[in-house]
Parts: sequence; structure tokens; C-alpha cells
Amino acid sequence: MSYTDHIFVEYRRRVAELKASKNPLAQGVVYLEGKYVPLHEARIPILDQGFLKSDLTYDVPAVWDGRYFRLDDHLDRFEESCKRLRLRSPVGRAEMRDRLVEMVAMSGIRDAYVMMIVTRGLRYIRQTPPEECENFCYLMVMPFLWVMDEETQKKGGSAIITRTVRRIPPGAIDPTVKNLQWGDFTRGILEARDRGAQYPILTDGDTNLTEGSGFNVMLVKDRKLYSARKGVLEGVTRKTVMEVAAGLGLETHLDDVPVDLAYSCDELFFVTTAGGVMPITELDGQPVGNGAVGPITKAIWKGYWDAHYDPKLSFGINYY
Amino acid sequence: MSYTDHIFVEYRRRVAELKASKNPLAQGVVYLEGKYVPLHEARIPILDQGFLKSDLTYDVPAVWDGRYFRLDDHLDRFEESCKRLRLRSPVGRAEMRDRLVEMVAMSGIRDAYVMMIVTRGLRYIRQTPPEECENFCYLMVMPFLWVMDEETQKKGGSAIITRTVRRIPPGAIDPTVKNLQWGDFTRGILEARDRGAQYPILTDGDTNLTEGSGFNVMLVKDRKLYSARKGVLEGVTRKTVMEVAAGLGLETHLDDVPVDLAYSCDELFFVTTAGGVMPITELDGQPVGNGAVGPITKAIWKGYWDAHYDPKLSFGINYY
Repeated sequence: MSYTDHIFVEYRRRVAELKASKNPLAQGVVYLEGKYVPLHEARIPILDQGFLKSDLTYDVPAVWDGRYFRLDDHLDRFEESCKRLRLRSPVGRAEMRDRLVEMVAMSGIRDAYVMMIVTRGLRYIRQTPPEECENFCYLMVMPFLWVMDEETQKKGGSAIITRTVRRIPPGAIDPTVKNLQWGDFTRGILEARDRGAQYPILTDGDTNLTEGSGFNVMLVKDRKLYSARKGVLEGVTRKTVMEVAAGLGLETHLDDVPVDLAYSCDELFFVTTAGGVMPITELDGQPVGNGAVGPITKAIWKGYWDAHYDPKLSFGINYY
Repeated sequence: MSYTDHIFVEYRRRVAELKASKNPLAQGVVYLEGKYVPLHEARIPILDQGFLKSDLTYDVPAVWDGRYFRLDDHLDRFEESCKRLRLRSPVGRAEMRDRLVEMVAMSGIRDAYVMMIVTRGLRYIRQTPPEECENFCYLMVMPFLWVMDEETQKKGGSAIITRTVRRIPPGAIDPTVKNLQWGDFTRGILEARDRGAQYPILTDGDTNLTEGSGFNVMLVKDRKLYSARKGVLEGVTRKTVMEVAAGLGLETHLDDVPVDLAYSCDELFFVTTAGGVMPITELDGQPVGNGAVGPITKAIWKGYWDAHYDPKLSFGINYY
């Protein structure tokens, strides 16, 4: 028995059903250039500036147990990201929402990792004014991805605070505009591997924590939560976690988080769509708190997954 | 008559010949997955981590008037870049060199922009150790690209020193490892457009110049050249320019270059493979020096293009 059974017993059953599915889109489906294509057959032009300059933005909502979770929050943030980069999706919001639902319904995938991407297209802004660039939109639906798998969630994972790399500063690339320029995260992951840990936490180069490779970082100390205000993505998962925490009577302080707090906190966990609440019980080779997944982390973990059935935050999909 | 006629009269003749060519690869050719494909038909898997995380490195040699220029310098740098990212090209150096020559010969392109790219492949390093990732290699040959066109080179272009964005610092992403994570450059170009200029120069956020969107920045003052030592790509074009300058009795100082020097220098120019020596005669709306392309810039410009016929630096291709 593990606290994680709360979702994973049923999830594993659904995964087994998906594996046995004869649906040709069961491994994923992509919308591009007006067509639906199986994920593993989907190809983009090599001249797409989303590849040649990583000139794009993206977002990642999820489907859990047949229900889209906070899809509109992700669509909102995605619209804002496009505006900031002077991108304009050729697929309008209403159509995008419809297709994102349709793709899940078509595929039969009950627990899905979903991506919307808008790229600059074939022209770059050096030669062509942004308003004249024909932007491209790709939509992807695939089986759920886990940044931290079930086994690791049971006892918590291991992390390091990186010293060979620091987070790209907002003055260079805006971290609130979700992007795929993961050079710092990639270095962080390599350092974690080199140091025998699973995950990196990056600093801002000025003694504050930021985030990790695709997840926000949250600390618990004396029954308060802490997470970085600047230099990080404003995570939807983190937003949900803060609401759940508030429901448990716990405040979250969004502010500068001194690196030092990570070494003296009671509990530490990461949050992201592709994994949910991910406990960290070892930092730089030493236990966090008493080295076990903490009670506040567990309570938030449960509240987070229960929220996926809240009709104010989620809606069911009518599968074909 | 313009100093630029030295290369452009003949270049324009070759471009006209290329336009009239019936060769199906005249617009460019790509090598991917063991096959040669016309550039505009080339597609990569949407699941390539080179797209999904910009997890890749690349390099850009050029062909000028039927001769590869400093191909081995680019292959050297590319090998070093791959090592730093723990990437291993599935196409070994000798084969890569042969194919890069073959692709130009097949296409009939006399003046070519050439790209070699190695991506992490379909697996990312979070789940898979780098040594177990099957990396992908893409080679691209296309007609020469000009970051600064002939018309602009005649009188010089306009630049700004950006204030809404600073260069990604080396502690986040190593600028000496050529990469396509152009988020800061993209912002810089947008700022330049907003401020009515053609090119951005980015600072390091600490009062020093770095580079611009795909080019090194060089300043001339009192018959000395200055260019940033840190925080920039170690450009092959810049290397050639320094050798040409030395041949003219001019020293280049590679060191911190204070932003202020840009406003008091005699001459200013950018250097990159896709353009060569690109004079800048207006900075932040004010003339640089006397507002005309300077004599040292012109002398280096000529020496740079003449070097393309130097058998120590270039070799001719046997076109089909």
C-alpha cells in the first residue's frame, strides 16, 4: 500500500486498456497542415523556424481519466505567450479547443499529454516583419508522460541544486512565455546525472532558486509554502497546488526563495502537468526533512489529483 | 561603382545562372535518414528533440564561387560543440565532409549556405542517458543567404544596442557551442524593428557588448580592432577577419568591450558566414564615425573575400 495507489491503481488499468486498443491513434495523434496524422508519422518542414531558431511558443494541458483539466487556463496562457512573441495562431482559440477535444476523443486516450505549438513558420523576422509571417500551428495528443514515475513518487526522488549552470535570466528569455529553449535545463539534467541524482534545480545566479527542467519548485517550512515569484514559468499545476494548499489552510509565499531555504525546509516537491506533485526526499545527497515524503506533500498530492474531477476545473470528453 | 562590386558583379551573374538551372536540387538539398531530398520537401519527425527541446548543435560553412571556405575549421568547431553537449554524430567526420562536398556538387550551387546539425534524436536525456540516445544528423545545402544584402553593404546598415533584452549568459547557455536557441536574438530583432533599425547588438547585462543575432561585432578605434572575448560565439568569419587585419598591420583586441566604445569608435562592422563583413554606419540613430563605410572596414571586407580564393583556406568543388 502506498499513498500513490489513490490514482495509480486505476491509471494502470487504463494504461493496460490503451495498450490493448486497436485504435490506430492510440499512440498519439498530431494535427498539422489541416490533417490528423498518427504521432509517430508526423513530420514538420526542416525549414520551420520553430526548428531553425526555436522561434515558437507552446503549452501543455492534460487529460486525466477522460477529463480535460484546466484546458481554458492553458489556452489563456498560450494566447498571452503568442502575443508576447508577436505570433498569431492560424488556428483560432475556439477551433483549437474543439480540435484538442476531438483529437482526444478520436484517439481513445484516457490520460493524455497534450501540446499546442505555434511557430513563426517558414520566414524569420529578420527578413520578414512578424505581422507578415505565416505562422504554423501544431497540436499533439499522446499518452500521459511522467516526469516522475509511480515508483519514484512513492518514496520521493533525488535532486541537486546545480552549480555548473544557472537559469536563463528573464532579461534574455522570458520564462513566463513557455518555450522549448531548454539549453540550461539540458545542462542541469546532465549535471544531475553526473552527480548521481534524478533532477536539477536551477538558481538565478544570484542566490535564489528558480525552477527545474520543466517543473516549478515548492518548499514547505513551518506549515508555509514557498516558491519563486520571478524567473520561472507561472505554472498551472502550481496554481492548482496553491489553491489546494489554501483549502488546507496553508499559505503560499511567492517571492525570492533563497537557495539556502532548500537545505532547511521540511518538505520539497516539484509540480508540473506531466507528473503532478512530485516529492523530493533527497537534496544534494542528503535527506530533506526526515527523508520521507512529508504529510503536507501527501495532502497536496491527493488534493491535486482529486481536483481533476472538480467540474469547475475539468470536463469529461465524449469518446467515439 | 561601389567597393562591393568587387564580388557582387560576378555573384549576381552566378545567381542568374542558378535561377535558370534545371537541376532539381538547385534550390537546395538535405541529407536526412540516409537519403538526399530537395530542401523544400525535407521534413523531420515532430518528435525530434532538436525540435521539442532545441537539443542540438549546428555549424555553418559556406561555398563561395565554387569553393568551400574553411570547411575544416567548421568541422573542428562542430566536433567540439557535439562533445560539449554529449552528442555524437551518427555521420562520422570523413563521411560528413564527403557528403557536404557531394551535395554541393549535385546541386550545382556555386555560392552556398551549408548547415550541419546533430540533434539528440527521439529520446531526451531525462529518461535516457546521453550515451544511449540515438542522435540524428541533418545536412543542408542551399543558395547563399545574406544577413546584410548588397544594397545595404554599399552604405552600411543601421543598428541599435538593445535595452529590452540582454544576451543569454554563458552560465545558462554556452555561446561558444553554436545553437539555435535564439530567444534573445529574436527579441533583439523585434526591438530593432520597433526602433527603426535593421540589426540588434546585445549586451551582457553588465555594460559590455557581446554579439548580435547571428554575427560577431567588431569595432575599430585608432587603428585597432576590438571584439568581445567572452559571451559570444568564436566566429570563423571573425577569425578570418583578424588574420586579414593582421596582414594589414592591424591588431585585434579580444577582451571585454565596454558598451560605451560603440558610441565613440571610428568604424563598426558585423561578421558572419552568411554575409561576410557587414558595415554599420548608424548606431542608435546616430552616425558611426563620419557616417560612411570606413577605410579599414573596406580593406578588411576586400581581404576577407579575396581569402576565399586562398588555397590554404579553400578548395574547389568538382561539379557534376
